Amino acid sequence: MNPIQIGLLGVGTVGGGTYTVLKRNREEIARRAGREIVIKMIADTNLERARSLADSGVIVTGDGHEVTKNPDIDIVVELIGGQTIAKELILEAIANGKHVVTANKALLANHGTEIFAAARAKGVIVAFEAAVAGGIPIIKALREGLTANRITWIAGIINGTSNFILSEMRDKGLPFDQVLAQAQKLGYAEADPTYDIEGIDAAHKITLMSAIAFGIPVQFSKVYVEGITKLTGEDIRYAEELGYRIKLLGITKRVEKGIELRVHPTLIPMKRLIANVEGVMNAIVVKGDAVGATLYYGAGAGSEPTASSVIADLVDITRLHTADPKHRVPPLSFQPDLLSDTPVIPMDEVETSYYLRIQVVDKPGVMAEITRIVAEQNISISALLQKEASDESDQVSVIMLTHLTVEKNINAAIARIEALPVVTGKVFRLRIEELNN
Amino acid sequence: MNPIQIGLLGVGTVGGGTYTVLKRNREEIARRAGREIVIKMIADTNLERARSLADSGVIVTGDGHEVTKNPDIDIVVELIGGQTIAKELILEAIANGKHVVTANKALLANHGTEIFAAARAKGVIVAFEAAVAGGIPIIKALREGLTANRITWIAGIINGTSNFILSEMRDKGLPFDQVLAQAQKLGYAEADPTYDIEGIDAAHKITLMSAIAFGIPVQFSKVYVEGITKLTGEDIRYAEELGYRIKLLGITKRVEKGIELRVHPTLIPMKRLIANVEGVMNAIVVKGDAVGATLYYGAGAGSEPTASSVIADLVDITRLHTADPKHRVPPLSFQPDLLSDTPVIPMDEVETSYYLRIQVVDKPGVMAEITRIVAEQNISISALLQKEASDESDQVSVIMLTHLTVEKNINAAIARIEALPVVTGKVFRLRIEELNN
Repeated sequence: MNPIQIGLLGVGTVGGGTYTVLKRNREEIARRAGREIVIKMIADTNLERARSLADSGVIVTGDGHEVTKNPDIDIVVELIGGQTIAKELILEAIANGKHVVTANKALLANHGTEIFAAARAKGVIVAFEAAVAGGIPIIKALREGLTANRITWIAGIINGTSNFILSEMRDKGLPFDQVLAQAQKLGYAEADPTYDIEGIDAAHKITLMSAIAFGIPVQFSKVYVEGITKLTGEDIRYAEELGYRIKLLGITKRVEKGIELRVHPTLIPMKRLIANVEGVMNAIVVKGDAVGATLYYGAGAGSEPTASSVIADLVDITRLHTADPKHRVPPLSFQPDLLSDTPVIPMDEVETSYYLRIQVVDKPGVMAEITRIVAEQNISISALLQKEASDESDQVSVIMLTHLTVEKNINAAIARIEALPVVTGKVFRLRIEELNN
Repeated sequence: MNPIQIGLLGVGTVGGGTYTVLKRNREEIARRAGREIVIKMIADTNLERARSLADSGVIVTGDGHEVTKNPDIDIVVELIGGQTIAKELILEAIANGKHVVTANKALLANHGTEIFAAARAKGVIVAFEAAVAGGIPIIKALREGLTANRITWIAGIINGTSNFILSEMRDKGLPFDQVLAQAQKLGYAEADPTYDIEGIDAAHKITLMSAIAFGIPVQFSKVYVEGITKLTGEDIRYAEELGYRIKLLGITKRVEKGIELRVHPTLIPMKRLIANVEGVMNAIVVKGDAVGATLYYGAGAGSEPTASSVIADLVDITRLHTADPKHRVPPLSFQPDLLSDTPVIPMDEVETSYYLRIQVVDKPGVMAEITRIVAEQNISISALLQKEASDESDQVSVIMLTHLTVEKNINAAIARIEALPVVTGKVFRLRIEELNN
């Protein structure tokens, strides 16, 4: 059989890795796919970089449109990133009847509905394993491996940069800023780290997983997002003392009122396997009604791990190239005309439990005032610590863990606590997930 | 579209779970599969059990052949187990042009080649996600998720019964026999626990994973198998002291001379994620050249977790029912005419590192004699402990960890050590895997 011919858009970190791995493992990949998978064209605005990578016989161009228009190309691999030219080229490739493989989580989380519809109309596949958790085949697990289940929830460490920062803060007792600088030096964080540390990257990924798990459209605008920039070493230590680790989690849950969809730093019990995932590694726990909890762990980023997922998609498409489009796996697992309109619940109505750190003047009656407010908001307390300030001030920190309550109740309680004259500054709030049912 | 019609052979633990989950999640499964998946027939020698499960409209029979012969049945699900009637019915179903889903690891590890060839000749699918690690979609990960990679090694906790026993021995300091009895009482171990505690069940599973990872035929007869029955609480404590946990691992590795394929209790560094997998849970680490190490964790047995995998296969087949057989995923991932004849290496030639426990009479010069023998066999020592016996005897235990060496060298050293007059009884040997490269 003729080789499947690939056009590669973008040969940066992931594109370069894809080229290298396809070349190195060419024979073994062909034995699996049943056909050779060959890169025919490379497009990159950095022509020099593209030329230095390309072997003889590979066409190099600075113009992506030449790839999407080339009738010899079977699959277009988009590894440019961003939501402008990448979107244009993907839609053009689809319009020209080409399958598309992409790692572009931002694009799919925002414009997935439009892109999947275009692909469906043309009977081509859009595959995106590499868009979530790098080399971990989590999209495949959700979309194909766990199809028997009514998924209950997903909780994932899906941003390696922020997990590295939290691991180092805990391990070495260093403050956020210092660890971030170190992460940038090591290449684990970009010059502008906003997407990673503010939770936006994780939000893109949990949006995609939520759609696949629950059969709803991708709805990035509905994710509640909170990053790790306000966390202090103290919080990490207090959590530890109470038996918890703090991780930036992407969480999506099916509850009675709808779907929860949120990213925030979260206390999880130390004894859970996922609490022990350190450094730049990623891990996702998926809870299904039949299978129980399953966990998937691996490198969430990097050149070859992400290439591993890009190429897995290429092999999938090669294996199914000639299959009737109606019988392929739908991009979001559920048949596209059977997606559900279950609402994403506003954060105010989400029920969870909380960690509060309250800075107070150390005098009699303070605890009584705070606990009275909390009780009046119908919140019950599961643990309470009072911590001396390290300096010689008259201030102390009160650490409170609550049982389950609704976000708007805790917000009301926080507003009232902050209004107390003995409370100095803002109350710092984190959420707790037990991940046990 | 018409529903896909299923014939269910065997409604014990997994068959019952399959029936229940398919019924409970029927609507959601159909939204994923694109068609309803309906159980049309049930066969079980225990007719009463089958009748009490079956809803109206489901045909119940005591004769499996009625299922494999029924022209209305699209997919036969074999959950009887064993290698006699199960094999006969699977081959009959294939001969009649039906797809087959099975959880029968013993059958496939021994007769997979014959069964896959028969299926290929008839253009039908044989799917077996449920045969390895219960609900964890590890077959799919290996066969489809990691196709970009040259797999380097797989190491898995793939027998929940033995992992439960080892966890309890460590946690509670109880001896093997007592924990086994408790496991039997809890339903985690069968009345005849041989397959679980002697490593045979794990050997079936690692045989299947090895074939998929390396593109070799299934070769159960080549697995080296050692169970957990000789382990003592002392070994578990000494390992702990040296920074290791003992787990029964199924291991398969690609090395220069061929493929390693083995099951034995193994010391692994405590800090590895897989060392922290406790109780009846399963976990598999897969190392690929591009992706690095990935880990898959979940329930490795039980009614609904295993049913989760059976039904995932049913959805896969439903989605691909009409696809051209040549373009489906091959059962062992590699195209069947492109399997390799890379040899499985005899255990004697396998290179690993070792834990030895040597019972000696406590007198001067003993250590010198032992270390001299070890040095003469070209084995280098990484740790050496001397442990007082708990009773008032004149005996002590010498615990030795070695660096990498070949199994035949360690065996030669053990034979010579056992021949020393100061050594009492047999040397107890375990293998160590660092799982770090």
